[in-house]
Amino acid sequence: MEILLKDISIITMNEADEIIEKGYLVISGDKIKEIGEGDAPGGSFDKIIEGGNKLAMPGFINTHTHAAMTLLRGYADDLPLMEWLQTKIWPLEEKLTEEHIYWGTMLAIAEMIKSGTTTFADMYFCMDEVAKAVEKTGMRAVLSRGMVGIGLQSELALKQSEELIKTWHNGADGRITFMLGPHAPYTCPPNYLKKVIALAEKTGVGIHIHVAETKTEFEDIKKQYGKTPVEHLESLGLFNYKVLAAHCVHLTENDMEIMNKHNVGVAHNPESNMKLASGIAPVPQMLKKGITVALGTDGASSNNNLDMLQEMRTCALLHKVNTMDPTVLPAYEALKIATANGAKVLGLEKKIGKLETGKKADIIILDLDAPHIMPRYDLVANVVYAAQAGDVNTVIIDGKIVMENREIKTFDEKEVLDKAARIGWQLVKGY
Amino acid sequence: MEILLKDISIITMNEADEIIEKGYLVISGDKIKEIGEGDAPGGSFDKIIEGGNKLAMPGFINTHTHAAMTLLRGYADDLPLMEWLQTKIWPLEEKLTEEHIYWGTMLAIAEMIKSGTTTFADMYFCMDEVAKAVEKTGMRAVLSRGMVGIGLQSELALKQSEELIKTWHNGADGRITFMLGPHAPYTCPPNYLKKVIALAEKTGVGIHIHVAETKTEFEDIKKQYGKTPVEHLESLGLFNYKVLAAHCVHLTENDMEIMNKHNVGVAHNPESNMKLASGIAPVPQMLKKGITVALGTDGASSNNNLDMLQEMRTCALLHKVNTMDPTVLPAYEALKIATANGAKVLGLEKKIGKLETGKKADIIILDLDAPHIMPRYDLVANVVYAAQAGDVNTVIIDGKIVMENREIKTFDEKEVLDKAARIGWQLVKGY
Repeated sequence: MEILLKDISIITMNEADEIIEKGYLVISGDKIKEIGEGDAPGGSFDKIIEGGNKLAMPGFINTHTHAAMTLLRGYADDLPLMEWLQTKIWPLEEKLTEEHIYWGTMLAIAEMIKSGTTTFADMYFCMDEVAKAVEKTGMRAVLSRGMVGIGLQSELALKQSEELIKTWHNGADGRITFMLGPHAPYTCPPNYLKKVIALAEKTGVGIHIHVAETKTEFEDIKKQYGKTPVEHLESLGLFNYKVLAAHCVHLTENDMEIMNKHNVGVAHNPESNMKLASGIAPVPQMLKKGITVALGTDGASSNNNLDMLQEMRTCALLHKVNTMDPTVLPAYEALKIATANGAKVLGLEKKIGKLETGKKADIIILDLDAPHIMPRYDLVANVVYAAQAGDVNTVIIDGKIVMENREIKTFDEKEVLDKAARIGWQLVKGY
Repeated sequence: MEILLKDISIITMNEADEIIEKGYLVISGDKIKEIGEGDAPGGSFDKIIEGGNKLAMPGFINTHTHAAMTLLRGYADDLPLMEWLQTKIWPLEEKLTEEHIYWGTMLAIAEMIKSGTTTFADMYFCMDEVAKAVEKTGMRAVLSRGMVGIGLQSELALKQSEELIKTWHNGADGRITFMLGPHAPYTCPPNYLKKVIALAEKTGVGIHIHVAETKTEFEDIKKQYGKTPVEHLESLGLFNYKVLAAHCVHLTENDMEIMNKHNVGVAHNPESNMKLASGIAPVPQMLKKGITVALGTDGASSNNNLDMLQEMRTCALLHKVNTMDPTVLPAYEALKIATANGAKVLGLEKKIGKLETGKKADIIILDLDAPHIMPRYDLVANVVYAAQAGDVNTVIIDGKIVMENREIKTFDEKEVLDKAARIGWQLVKGY
């Protein structure tokens, strides 16, 4: 299958930061075969997509979410953190079955595709169901079975993680990869994290973990181990493996140096951190140190959407006001955080995150014919500061068109909406 | 003309904070005739709108913008404030003609309607053109001719303001009202503000002014007059008139007490304040004092869109993290700030801001059949935290349908896009 995108604007995110005002892109199979300025090459194509006032760019990479939590969207908001977790989220999560996880993930994937996300990193449970949803929908995902190191499930979680890796790692035509998902330093004691490290050594996969999300966590870990969460994880040897650290809100200078030294990738979740009042991660400082910061939405129960365009915009605006410097995190850097940096922290930088020859064809096409993104003096500023999810017209993942003219092609969106609404209502309201 | 909305969910924003799960609403002429729960009344209607999974609510009220600055969207971003103003915005504004203002405002109105705004408060120049655009499009607006009290134009600005009020105040079937628009304490010296006050006394209209937007302004005014901007304006007697104060980022406790005492209304512009790194307005503290805080987007050159749904969401999230309290500004309060409070600060609370019998029919209808707002446990949380501009399906202003199924009815959207793109490009690129 060969697809031609012609007469189209392209933000490549390549090393040269090339932006093509009018150009073309050829997809062959799952890969980008050719990309360039000016007129499209001759030849016959199975499909031609006309650009006009459209823009092609790499799909967004959501590096931290709990997809099936879409079923908890709007179930509990505006509460103090511990009350929210203890009286609302955790009791409801106890009731979640495989069916909930499957349809909740399907709902999340529908939302993600419709807002231009082509890869997501998920940490949750019943990950067989999540993998099935990813396989069916054509999404790309990096999955982790969330592991809590205390309680009856802790050993099972390790065993299941190993089995999931055997079954699914590099599955679904390579669209699924796995990481280990120890939940956080405060839910995984040192001896458990050592088991996780042993499993990372054995399986060769990376580690996805929440780090320093709240001030309470920072202070508790400090009290318990005499070290910051980052220092604590380093001392256990966790950072000798590929680590994706979600949140990283409360960090010291020394923490950032440790993270940079060990190439720890960061999944920054500004909106969830705002909504739960966890704090503002020191993103400009991390970037300055050389740390790769990527973007995530976190789960829909603390956001409450999975919209990476909004998340990217919030990221760019928040750090300006937080540092009182309007030049901080300019538009292009925010776009990089939401795309190329995402690929890097997930260990997929050879495959995705940029539009260039040989990369996988994970491409979104935005329709720029709308009042809120006119005039078009600056494509990047328009995408970062003015665009909205509804502008995403077409989504291509692994060379396959999964959405065209806002219609999802790989599954029945209406069935997902109906099913998710029904089982969500039963779960929350009991009837 | 009678329009019936049936089988529809309704967020009324009325005194009882009533939310109708399934109900109806009858529009007769420009007003709401009836609203209630359950089945619609019998009788014949000129038009029936079926609800299904749709939600009716008051249109958003954007209490501070510079509409025609849509023509400057994406023209200059990520620069230090004074460099941005002095080397980019001001020189370009010098070149703006009546034609630019008209089409820039038309573009802004297209964007506002498509994102659910039914009233906007504008401060700019060539306000005859703005008024014409408002008249044509069916929008509701509160217009101010921006007045700078230094330089050659200062007396002319007063004269023009008076003429505009004569021509347009209560014009366009009452959809247009006027306020006086002295730009800010640092651009309007005391003797000029006294002339503004005299004109307010003479014309009976309110005053729309930028107040304490930046730390520099706060410090400069303090140095010059020995008073904070708010104290300074009070001492001049400005607050004896109806005042809409935009921004109010840098306030003392005493400032807030003064503002509350004089019923000064606030137009809070969180995203512009973030993007320009002006600071975070003390909104929870103002609300606690009893001040009416409403919402605005500011101009598209510092936002870069006029999307009130996004602005409301940012408002709710920002103050949670700024106060480190996740219970601050709960969803319903954010919605009130974006609707009912807007009506109040514009002096239009008897006409708009709530859906109840006798009020003007300024109503937006959101389509909730989309993955990013499913399931629907909590309509208000879904609207505030998850909805997006594209969910706005139908917009009714003054009883007239201005957009239906996302198609604008009162003017040719495509003509506006083409014209704005062309004249914007000429303005900025010179060809």
